[in-house]
Amino acid sequence: MESPKIVIVGGVAGGMSCAARARRLDEAAEIVVLERGEHVSFANCGLPYYVGGEITDPGALLVQTPTSLRAALNLDVRTRHDVTGLDADRKVVTVRTPDGEVELAYDALVLAPGARAVVPPIPGIDSPRVRTLRTVDDALALRDGVEGGARDAVVLGAGFIGLEAAEALAHQGLNVTIVELAPHVLPPLESELATLVTAELAALGIDVRAGVAATAIEPEGGRDAVVLADGSRVPADLIVLSVGVRPDTAVFEAAGVRTERGAILIDDHGRTSLPSVWAVGDATASVDAVTGAVRPVALAGPANRAGRLVADAILRPDSARPLPSPLGTAIVRAGSLTAALTGANRAGLDAAGIDYVTLHLHPNQHAGYFPGAAQMHLVVHISPTDGRLLGAQAVGTDGVDKRIDVLATAMRAHLFVTDLIDLDLSYSPPYGQAKDAVNLVGMVGENVLNQTLRLWYADDLDAVRAEALLLDVRGPAEVATGALPGALAIPHTLLRERLDEVRAAAAGRPVRVLCASGVRSAIAHRILVQAGFDSASLSGGMLTLRAHLGERAADVIVVAA
Amino acid sequence: MESPKIVIVGGVAGGMSCAARARRLDEAAEIVVLERGEHVSFANCGLPYYVGGEITDPGALLVQTPTSLRAALNLDVRTRHDVTGLDADRKVVTVRTPDGEVELAYDALVLAPGARAVVPPIPGIDSPRVRTLRTVDDALALRDGVEGGARDAVVLGAGFIGLEAAEALAHQGLNVTIVELAPHVLPPLESELATLVTAELAALGIDVRAGVAATAIEPEGGRDAVVLADGSRVPADLIVLSVGVRPDTAVFEAAGVRTERGAILIDDHGRTSLPSVWAVGDATASVDAVTGAVRPVALAGPANRAGRLVADAILRPDSARPLPSPLGTAIVRAGSLTAALTGANRAGLDAAGIDYVTLHLHPNQHAGYFPGAAQMHLVVHISPTDGRLLGAQAVGTDGVDKRIDVLATAMRAHLFVTDLIDLDLSYSPPYGQAKDAVNLVGMVGENVLNQTLRLWYADDLDAVRAEALLLDVRGPAEVATGALPGALAIPHTLLRERLDEVRAAAAGRPVRVLCASGVRSAIAHRILVQAGFDSASLSGGMLTLRAHLGERAADVIVVAA
Repeated sequence: MESPKIVIVGGVAGGMSCAARARRLDEAAEIVVLERGEHVSFANCGLPYYVGGEITDPGALLVQTPTSLRAALNLDVRTRHDVTGLDADRKVVTVRTPDGEVELAYDALVLAPGARAVVPPIPGIDSPRVRTLRTVDDALALRDGVEGGARDAVVLGAGFIGLEAAEALAHQGLNVTIVELAPHVLPPLESELATLVTAELAALGIDVRAGVAATAIEPEGGRDAVVLADGSRVPADLIVLSVGVRPDTAVFEAAGVRTERGAILIDDHGRTSLPSVWAVGDATASVDAVTGAVRPVALAGPANRAGRLVADAILRPDSARPLPSPLGTAIVRAGSLTAALTGANRAGLDAAGIDYVTLHLHPNQHAGYFPGAAQMHLVVHISPTDGRLLGAQAVGTDGVDKRIDVLATAMRAHLFVTDLIDLDLSYSPPYGQAKDAVNLVGMVGENVLNQTLRLWYADDLDAVRAEALLLDVRGPAEVATGALPGALAIPHTLLRERLDEVRAAAAGRPVRVLCASGVRSAIAHRILVQAGFDSASLSGGMLTLRAHLGERAADVIVVAA
Repeated sequence: MESPKIVIVGGVAGGMSCAARARRLDEAAEIVVLERGEHVSFANCGLPYYVGGEITDPGALLVQTPTSLRAALNLDVRTRHDVTGLDADRKVVTVRTPDGEVELAYDALVLAPGARAVVPPIPGIDSPRVRTLRTVDDALALRDGVEGGARDAVVLGAGFIGLEAAEALAHQGLNVTIVELAPHVLPPLESELATLVTAELAALGIDVRAGVAATAIEPEGGRDAVVLADGSRVPADLIVLSVGVRPDTAVFEAAGVRTERGAILIDDHGRTSLPSVWAVGDATASVDAVTGAVRPVALAGPANRAGRLVADAILRPDSARPLPSPLGTAIVRAGSLTAALTGANRAGLDAAGIDYVTLHLHPNQHAGYFPGAAQMHLVVHISPTDGRLLGAQAVGTDGVDKRIDVLATAMRAHLFVTDLIDLDLSYSPPYGQAKDAVNLVGMVGENVLNQTLRLWYADDLDAVRAEALLLDVRGPAEVATGALPGALAIPHTLLRERLDEVRAAAAGRPVRVLCASGVRSAIAHRILVQAGFDSASLSGGMLTLRAHLGERAADVIVVAA
């Protein structure tokens, strides 16, 4: 094959990754990268940390420049070049440049236009105080605002970027309010984990307003007020808009590229519906690895890796590997916490009609006797029939990224939950436990699958109270810190000798056991079930129950007078 | 099946894990745990940290006691009960107890006797100043020694425990010398990583004497002197013996249990050669998952997990899963460094006759522009034919445990190196890179397999110097910090326009490229090979070369006058 002329639309993440790989495969190819913005290959994921002051040098955000890319990789990188048209028959794109409109021919075209911020249609959203956080200019402007004496900030949208923006501004000393339409922050996170993040944000001094819409932005006293649907008004010197993104594909749709809800449809090798046109990154639709849902996944990792595979597909079509289906693994720091997830959540599984059972665990990240031991909070969804891993999420102060990465690897490898038991993970007291958190997920999952363990859930509390005996097997000191009214309290260590009490109190009803985290109640469950009781153990124990209840916890879990 | 009487010999790790699982499966089983020592279920991996003072409360080392195990799990735990005989025909063990010898009958017997410290046959090894670090008593005695004013300590053996002991004693302010017969500390670690650990130990003030035997321990001035084969004498108030362990199985061998070099041979479900006798833990032989070598693996994680599986095998034989083959994943903290490994190393692969190619990478643990970015040093062995993952090792200040656990998971799942490219690992700047270190291993591995990249190795340096042109593609400032005499220096960014210089200097010889870490030299290799050169890129670059050379680096890598 003669070396082609490759034109790449978009010079960040997927586009630049494709360009670099293409050069390494083919010295003779002509490779042109067209970037609408001022900068290519900038650290888009680093922008919040510059706003927050953790990254001090704005130059650090510019990972590469057109000059450095020319020198190292002989790439022809053109910034402020906005592609406004595509003629696939003639194999040309139309480009608006600082010097006017030009046409550019290609042999292979790679679309990496990324996504645009969603702008909600509310009055005042065009206020100059409203900014997204997607470009270096956005970050510089927000940092200028901070240094210019801004006191109050509102962040619209509590997704990953929204949380990072809120923390950054709070770190700079601003009063920050974060407004989220969904019932809780980090909507992809399960609610029983999201409440932990909400509490951490509160500890950072961030005012979280979830489950409420912003309805208007109005001038007030020389700055803005964000008006919420509940009637409250939040003053703002700065407003960060982070309610989501949408593939930026209108130009290509108009040219005949097939899309689904705006996302470019691609085959296994990144080919679009038009000949000689490929696409990568946030603008493309992917088939979710777990649910099969077709949707855009706006994540840097998959985009970067897809760029490399598309270069292979163009230049080495016979040996190119297919693009993997994304698991959607994502992670965010929130104060001292890390929240991370991979695979599907309940909402995604429900929407896809996939059955699942959920495991809750709170294992330490390293040996309990070693200084700094801290609980992680894990939620794992598995298939009830075969134990297929469907999704995993975790929140904690340490070790969360490791466990989610191990679980994401296990999911990519199509392991089942019982396979997690056998993972040979590194152990010494500063790093893990002899039975690592992930091994424990496997053990609990196996117990559930083979019915050695039967779970009940925080969500079932009302029904359980109506129909069963609640048995609290924590110790007296723990019970004194708060318990469920009406629960029979017998420490698990005394249960064998006090089974008659349980029998009398149950009076034929089922017994639903709980402890702090679900470990001791599982032991108690084994005792009960072998003594003939209809028993089940609360998944995740009081820790998960409290987190599930959120603000209602104080009403439900009562400290005896 | 009627509930059996299960007797378990050994109450730490595998034995206790088996006992606890057995109880959860069967409330009616009689479960007796016989422990030779004073304590059961103690934190054996935590002992060095108590010696070093990081763990302050010795009570924290006693994770469980016979009383707590009786209460929680109705286990009959008998300490100071030493099994001295086994009659498998009569199904009884003979037990030496504080009150004399007794016989104890069983339906199922589980042998978890663990391992004993190897005691080298050198004069003076019976000095009262010599201790192992395997029991709570050992830890208390060493701590007493520290607090009693010990000034000088010698650690014999620089394996995992030896390193932990040395660091602990140095942390307490002692002058510590560590003596290792093998050529470098942490013998399972590849030498180019071990030199990094050696340097860190030196920075902690620990005197490392590798490649030398201790030949005697002699009284000297009211304490001991450790005499080395090179004639030097090292004074010692304390001597820690950590040259290795050996299965503690003489009693059971005598009773007819089949062993191999002292390790109990077991089948997939932990069954020994005798009926109704199972075995777990450090005393058993395992089949290495990579090399197939049959050997004991003295690690807490596999022992704990095997205990659970053996309980399943005894009580639920129809549904019990087989014991996995160990990968031997292990980790150790050494000062600010972490060293970890999984799978086979060169020595194991060579012994098994398995072909491999080795990849060296030095990726950051998180985004380079985010504060605290630090290089990790990875060595990965793969099959040259199909890219099967054979072994991985890493050393670094942060993120090492995560990558080794991901790689161990990938190996357990039988992934190939190219599969690592597609792992959907969590990324945001504080946690990783869009192309995570493990993704990069996959990319480099794929390049090597499909011959896009050809490597040469530090070990080949002499041959390369004799037969090839060395081409250093680092920048002038880097070259000035030290370079290989005779190497042609052309920065990779100028290589395309200076190929004629390379051609002239090579004069028909092959070109062997190097840079700092192997990234830029790989780019240069692509340029060279497409320009018709016989080219290869130094695996791991100058970083690996320096580490490979160790103390010789200063002679080979020269700063121009």
